[in-house]
Amino acid sequence: MVENVKYLQCIKCGRRYPPNPGIYTCGQCGPEGILDVIYDYDYIRKQVSRESFLNNRDYSIWRYAHFLPIRKDSRRTPLRVGWTPLYRPERLGSELGLDRLYLKDDGLNPTASLKDRASAIAVVKAAEEGAGTVACSSTGNAASSLAGNAAAMGLKSYIFVPQRAPQGKVAQLLIFGAAVISVQGSYEDAFRLSAQAIELWGWYNRNAAINPYLVEGKKTVTLEICEQLDWQVPDWVVFSVGDGCTIAGAWKGFVDFFKAGLIEKLPKMLGVQAEGCCPISNAFFSGEDIRPMEENTIADSIAVGVPRNPRKALRAIRESKGTMVNVTDDEILQAMKLLGNTCGVFGEPAGAAGLAGLKKLAAAGVIKKGDMVVACITGNGLKDVQNAVRASGEPVKVSPDLEELKKKLSAAG
Amino acid sequence: MVENVKYLQCIKCGRRYPPNPGIYTCGQCGPEGILDVIYDYDYIRKQVSRESFLNNRDYSIWRYAHFLPIRKDSRRTPLRVGWTPLYRPERLGSELGLDRLYLKDDGLNPTASLKDRASAIAVVKAAEEGAGTVACSSTGNAASSLAGNAAAMGLKSYIFVPQRAPQGKVAQLLIFGAAVISVQGSYEDAFRLSAQAIELWGWYNRNAAINPYLVEGKKTVTLEICEQLDWQVPDWVVFSVGDGCTIAGAWKGFVDFFKAGLIEKLPKMLGVQAEGCCPISNAFFSGEDIRPMEENTIADSIAVGVPRNPRKALRAIRESKGTMVNVTDDEILQAMKLLGNTCGVFGEPAGAAGLAGLKKLAAAGVIKKGDMVVACITGNGLKDVQNAVRASGEPVKVSPDLEELKKKLSAAG
Repeated sequence: MVENVKYLQCIKCGRRYPPNPGIYTCGQCGPEGILDVIYDYDYIRKQVSRESFLNNRDYSIWRYAHFLPIRKDSRRTPLRVGWTPLYRPERLGSELGLDRLYLKDDGLNPTASLKDRASAIAVVKAAEEGAGTVACSSTGNAASSLAGNAAAMGLKSYIFVPQRAPQGKVAQLLIFGAAVISVQGSYEDAFRLSAQAIELWGWYNRNAAINPYLVEGKKTVTLEICEQLDWQVPDWVVFSVGDGCTIAGAWKGFVDFFKAGLIEKLPKMLGVQAEGCCPISNAFFSGEDIRPMEENTIADSIAVGVPRNPRKALRAIRESKGTMVNVTDDEILQAMKLLGNTCGVFGEPAGAAGLAGLKKLAAAGVIKKGDMVVACITGNGLKDVQNAVRASGEPVKVSPDLEELKKKLSAAG
Repeated sequence: MVENVKYLQCIKCGRRYPPNPGIYTCGQCGPEGILDVIYDYDYIRKQVSRESFLNNRDYSIWRYAHFLPIRKDSRRTPLRVGWTPLYRPERLGSELGLDRLYLKDDGLNPTASLKDRASAIAVVKAAEEGAGTVACSSTGNAASSLAGNAAAMGLKSYIFVPQRAPQGKVAQLLIFGAAVISVQGSYEDAFRLSAQAIELWGWYNRNAAINPYLVEGKKTVTLEICEQLDWQVPDWVVFSVGDGCTIAGAWKGFVDFFKAGLIEKLPKMLGVQAEGCCPISNAFFSGEDIRPMEENTIADSIAVGVPRNPRKALRAIRESKGTMVNVTDDEILQAMKLLGNTCGVFGEPAGAAGLAGLKKLAAAGVIKKGDMVVACITGNGLKDVQNAVRASGEPVKVSPDLEELKKKLSAAG
């Protein structure tokens, strides 16, 4: 039993379920019936306060254990997940025309992306349920974070990747000792085969939209932001959007802290998609259902043509009175370069996409000069070196000769 | 004036210099006359205590400002450098036959290596001296950390890399807006050209062995280890060795805390070199002077054929009553895999080399089962994906078909 959780609730039909092992989605609504974790906020209010956080020396996601759906005595991942830095990059702020810009660098998680926050919960829940094996299908960050946290916990992991998965990301999985299954087909093929295998062998399922607990891990990113801003709430919070789970989790964090009386207002959420793959923003602007799209963008972590969690994402943006915007690959590359040049932060394309969208809406006046804005960089650029090279050009090649160097540098200006 | 620093002292002849701008090495001994920063420990004792550290909420290298050669009011890098996690990986310990093994993951620094600790000091000193441009030659990590911290501070950087520098590291430099000069030659060629250019243009010099302040940044890694172990001192501390500056810095950290009365003993230092490039361990065992070597190892960060700081490194190992050991590239690759599989930590080859050496000396009984040992992983494996692929093997390829998956998985065991 988890004292702080009341029940799980279907976001489609509202039906309630006990927070028991093996319950992933609504029995009535099927895969679209994604469940919300509903907490007992009265209970939580008695456990925590701004004061108690100030005295808490656990600088990881576990400082928020009272807001997480895990048992007190559960075995936790030994990796240090969370409490990534929040910067106030003034030169970048000037470039964007924003006086109060903050940057959350979530690429500094142990496997170098925000997904560690979700995978940390996944391995803890797997251990709670007595599972020795965890599995998911993914092309990148979810997979590497699951494999890394599983290795640290001593769990076996099975990862299903589509054949197009880049060698570098596959290497990360193999280093963590995952059984990597390269499915000779599309991402959809890999997803379906993983679902069959998970059912057959009874592995713990970390497919994010299916598993109601993962969003709860992701929300710790905004819990940290609130604390790092000394309980001020930003006017805008910016995330890139793929499957929809991350922005949904980010919003849930603010809602939880608001309901627990720790913050006094809620921010607006800005969701940014790549122009070449934007089914959620299309649905946001048209008001219609999700229509699958091609996955035509360099930002592979948000290239999700058939998003599994649009409902929670759209709810986050609408409830917050936020908005969405699309950015081109070229704008993403420019944002990567701007971010690195002005902040010394290296974001992967999906990580910098949010910043590209922010730049656009700041220029358009939707986001105002005086607004307090937090943009989250969701993954480290070292995961995708080829696109970084595209963004940033080539080095100057010289022989070991000072005269040649002088000439080349003056030619380069 | 920096209140806590008494003077700089040549490690060769003992001559003293004031801690003033522009003084890098001993005027008498030349480049071999590397300077030590000598602190006023009586002054420092009055400023800090175990208690004061317990109440210090600055979880970055700046919590050790009283042990650093910078002014109180100096502008500091905005990046969060330091306070990386110290893990106690029990499965890895069992594999090595060590009951009290700890792992410091310094790949979780902002630009993904321990070198951020040194570069953070470099950019602060550059700003103190009014320099607008910083420069160094590096095989990778020193360069990317300098470029990242310079970008965050608003300084211009010139980086000289040898042509063999891995793509990930070069991409980082370019993204951070550095002027990257790829010298078509060895590390030695890159070093010499950088020295000429630095002299010609008067840039701030971040070449580690030349600049007496950088070792001071590096030492924060062991200051953290002491605090994270609740002021216990390990029996052995393990670092890979290239130029020699890192292990020298690590030792300086213990010595400083010892002299300030914060710890009660000193550890033994284990320095690990790659068999294909081990001039320092050759000198350690022969007792003779350094003889230059080829740079023939996959561990690019420690492939230094003409080390610039052997003197400080050898002093650290000898004073500590430690030892050295060489490891083959194959042992390094095995250590990378072992580390990833048992800990969920992805180290670059040079980062895992220390672990490979530890494994060897634990097997040989030099390091005992009951010894408290800390091994430092100095850089993130995402910087060098190609070698990770070599270390980790291939995925299982299957069609999107459950029956085929069953057969292939049972064949793979």
